[in-house]
Amino acid sequence: MSTSTTPTPADKPAYSALAATFTRLYRYSHLGSIAGWDQAAMMPSKGNSARGAALAELQVLMHQTLTDAKLSGLLQAAANEPLEPQERANLREMRRDWESANLLPERLVEAQSLAASHCEHAWRAQRKANDWQGFLENFRPVVTLAREEAQLLSQAKGVSPYEALMDKYEPGACAAHIESVFGAVKTWLPDLVHRVRAQQESDSVLQATGPFPVESQRALGLEVMALLGFDFEGGRLDISTHPFCGGVAEDVRITTRYSEDDFVRSLMGIVHETGHARYEQNLPRELLHLPVGRARSMGIHESQSLSFEMQLGRSPAFVQAIAPLVHKHLGAQEALSASNLARLLTRVQPGMIRVDADELTYPAHIILRFEIERALIDGAIAPEDIPALWDEKMQAYLGLDTRGDFQNGCLQDIHWPSGSFGYFPSYTLGAMYAAQYFASIRTLHPDLDARVAAGELSPVMDWLRTHIWSQASLWDTDTLVQRATGETLNPAHFRAHLERRYLMG
Amino acid sequence: MSTSTTPTPADKPAYSALAATFTRLYRYSHLGSIAGWDQAAMMPSKGNSARGAALAELQVLMHQTLTDAKLSGLLQAAANEPLEPQERANLREMRRDWESANLLPERLVEAQSLAASHCEHAWRAQRKANDWQGFLENFRPVVTLAREEAQLLSQAKGVSPYEALMDKYEPGACAAHIESVFGAVKTWLPDLVHRVRAQQESDSVLQATGPFPVESQRALGLEVMALLGFDFEGGRLDISTHPFCGGVAEDVRITTRYSEDDFVRSLMGIVHETGHARYEQNLPRELLHLPVGRARSMGIHESQSLSFEMQLGRSPAFVQAIAPLVHKHLGAQEALSASNLARLLTRVQPGMIRVDADELTYPAHIILRFEIERALIDGAIAPEDIPALWDEKMQAYLGLDTRGDFQNGCLQDIHWPSGSFGYFPSYTLGAMYAAQYFASIRTLHPDLDARVAAGELSPVMDWLRTHIWSQASLWDTDTLVQRATGETLNPAHFRAHLERRYLMG
Repeated sequence: MSTSTTPTPADKPAYSALAATFTRLYRYSHLGSIAGWDQAAMMPSKGNSARGAALAELQVLMHQTLTDAKLSGLLQAAANEPLEPQERANLREMRRDWESANLLPERLVEAQSLAASHCEHAWRAQRKANDWQGFLENFRPVVTLAREEAQLLSQAKGVSPYEALMDKYEPGACAAHIESVFGAVKTWLPDLVHRVRAQQESDSVLQATGPFPVESQRALGLEVMALLGFDFEGGRLDISTHPFCGGVAEDVRITTRYSEDDFVRSLMGIVHETGHARYEQNLPRELLHLPVGRARSMGIHESQSLSFEMQLGRSPAFVQAIAPLVHKHLGAQEALSASNLARLLTRVQPGMIRVDADELTYPAHIILRFEIERALIDGAIAPEDIPALWDEKMQAYLGLDTRGDFQNGCLQDIHWPSGSFGYFPSYTLGAMYAAQYFASIRTLHPDLDARVAAGELSPVMDWLRTHIWSQASLWDTDTLVQRATGETLNPAHFRAHLERRYLMG
Repeated sequence: MSTSTTPTPADKPAYSALAATFTRLYRYSHLGSIAGWDQAAMMPSKGNSARGAALAELQVLMHQTLTDAKLSGLLQAAANEPLEPQERANLREMRRDWESANLLPERLVEAQSLAASHCEHAWRAQRKANDWQGFLENFRPVVTLAREEAQLLSQAKGVSPYEALMDKYEPGACAAHIESVFGAVKTWLPDLVHRVRAQQESDSVLQATGPFPVESQRALGLEVMALLGFDFEGGRLDISTHPFCGGVAEDVRITTRYSEDDFVRSLMGIVHETGHARYEQNLPRELLHLPVGRARSMGIHESQSLSFEMQLGRSPAFVQAIAPLVHKHLGAQEALSASNLARLLTRVQPGMIRVDADELTYPAHIILRFEIERALIDGAIAPEDIPALWDEKMQAYLGLDTRGDFQNGCLQDIHWPSGSFGYFPSYTLGAMYAAQYFASIRTLHPDLDARVAAGELSPVMDWLRTHIWSQASLWDTDTLVQRATGETLNPAHFRAHLERRYLMG
């Protein structure tokens, strides 16, 4: 490719050939990312079948590119070339992609893409209609194909089937470690929720009274994005059924959804997705076309969104900084005072919907999904067993009865319809990493809250840029976190953060 | 491809293999079409470089697919297989694509895509800034590459370089024939414009007074699209600098632009693009994945947009049908009465901008561009000669001085920045075909105007569906028009239409 920006030095011909191939893959994936964003945010219903076929064709093309017989020899040869450390990290990431692709047959890749497009598209209407039976019909093939993928990856990598899928989102993740981390959370979280709720009973909190027009919420969201440093020349805000951060690193597309009687949902959704967006917008530009230039993992990605939404967004200091914007766009009712808003944003109340959950009950939603999807992929349960298990666990973890309410139960998330099993743990890992980052940031900046309250976010942004954004995939996850905070994942920071914010706040 | 919808009968293996390859190309082009629409309607500026690289990569991929050495033998073998007439037409179209691609080197295809992406993107700002010199720098390589393409195609096809490019948009088009048709128009048009303007001098026409809010114009546009039969489950209306009809046949994306002091521009733009859209939305669904299922040519495409905008949209009968919608959304000022609106829409006034031109002076804009781009591609003039030639011809054909006003002069259209030389004649060919269709429709339905005035558009839509939309690329252009109207292109209908509407109206 004459347009490749990768130099072709004579002493690393194999590496250079690999870089050219992965640059081509990056360009193909650009088209898939934009078409995928469009499918969720713009596309009318009759476009879906052709879109699904086109995206599946792209998956096949990318799979063919990665399974080209030449790559094996190039990967071996490149390992003996005089590579810079950054190139060696890139080689590691290229090999990882190559290994995963070569374990899966083209037929499976195509079938998965088609089944997911079909199931996810139908899910949008089925969720609204609370139609679990209709959904189940499209969902069964998605599960069957995911299990097939998991089996193939599992046998080759010597890990459990579920772990093999989780590895796609969190390279090197160990299911037993996550189970033990989550198991520990289950020992202290119910009691903490109980104590906090008892303490909050005596709080006087005003509910904000709508309607809050969509245009006002959008205008507020845009101003908060600007405060958080979102680059509007390299991204957009739109609407979709399920909020997400998509597009490409050069042009990041975040979405939200609006409800006229609840502005907090869209506002906190926007803050969350802006965290993802700034990570993408600040990955090193010169490496974007190579695997080493991409975000480290989905756990680290969620650590950005949750640094923004939880550590920063729901802190009284940040609420103070944005209160004038809230008043400007939504009016100045008493419930929107900074102090009341801060109480609203830290109010603990078990609820049905994960993305609307408070910070404290959120891990329960994740643990429930982790347990169900692991059983589903490992074959311990069938798709039709999900609702009963969902009800049982919602009752046990959050004391809620969800029977018959599929819409706000097991149909609420896009992950399963789109075949993304193994993703959910990333959220709680992300929350834990975020707490660990902020412990470091607070040590460096004891005056952090005062500066945030004054709208000065540079202590946070500079730290994230230096330690996370600019590091892309130069290191594995443990090394990245160790370099950033001096230790690998330490869930104690998360617990300490929750206790400080919710018991001593 | 297991998802191909093409059957694989044992007695036509070569044809079936070709159909599978062209289905794959169709899916690739889907991604390019959506990414292209997004680039014009959604993408922020920092996305352009990566988008350009991705689209160029896709062009290279499609070129590689079409130049695969296997295709030559398959095309030869398929010609001897027992094909149905529709399959034989498809084979003709596949061969046409194959021949064109195989005449061009991959390097040229990629360079053209990159140069056009770069030039077109910069043009958006340069047009606003009236920056001809800045534009010229990006435009020179676009012209150089187009000339190179034209030379290669010209030598192989034995036609002039410009004709070789025109053939991409109007297969089989003959430059000498078009020159003689346009030459004839030049003999009678100036006098007709003169007489009509003299006659209209005594008309009392009220100008509509804005501002007309964008949201009201959009709501009006959507209702008029619905009246015209646009299928919103298979398409969208958005905004772009230069209005166009893009996307894919299953999901048609039209765009417009709004000016608060002039609602006619957006309204007629929307009517125009809806004509393109209905053609795409009514191509035979079962053939869409094959070349035979696509629109016949750009001349025929423009005959749909101009059937909608000119034959229908500016007729007093149609204006009567939409007047209640205009009043509903824009208010009921006197200037918006059906009779005044009809006079406004047929007011003849030479102006600078092609897309805002009245029906009568429009051909002058096209003839001017045809003459300039032909000289440019054939090498008779250089890119820097364009402004002087533009001024000279605008003075000669429309009596307007455009010196120094590049923004409303030679920088106004997207075609040249994007490298689409040879497209412009399609507009006036389209206007002529449209007049010819309506002569046929009026013969069948002497009460056409009364029915249109009552909002009953089925006489027009049924005729277009039967004779044009459903026929896709089953026939060459001459045969299509002959079957539809009983004769090939006959410009007399266009002249008769203009004289009837503007002198006797």
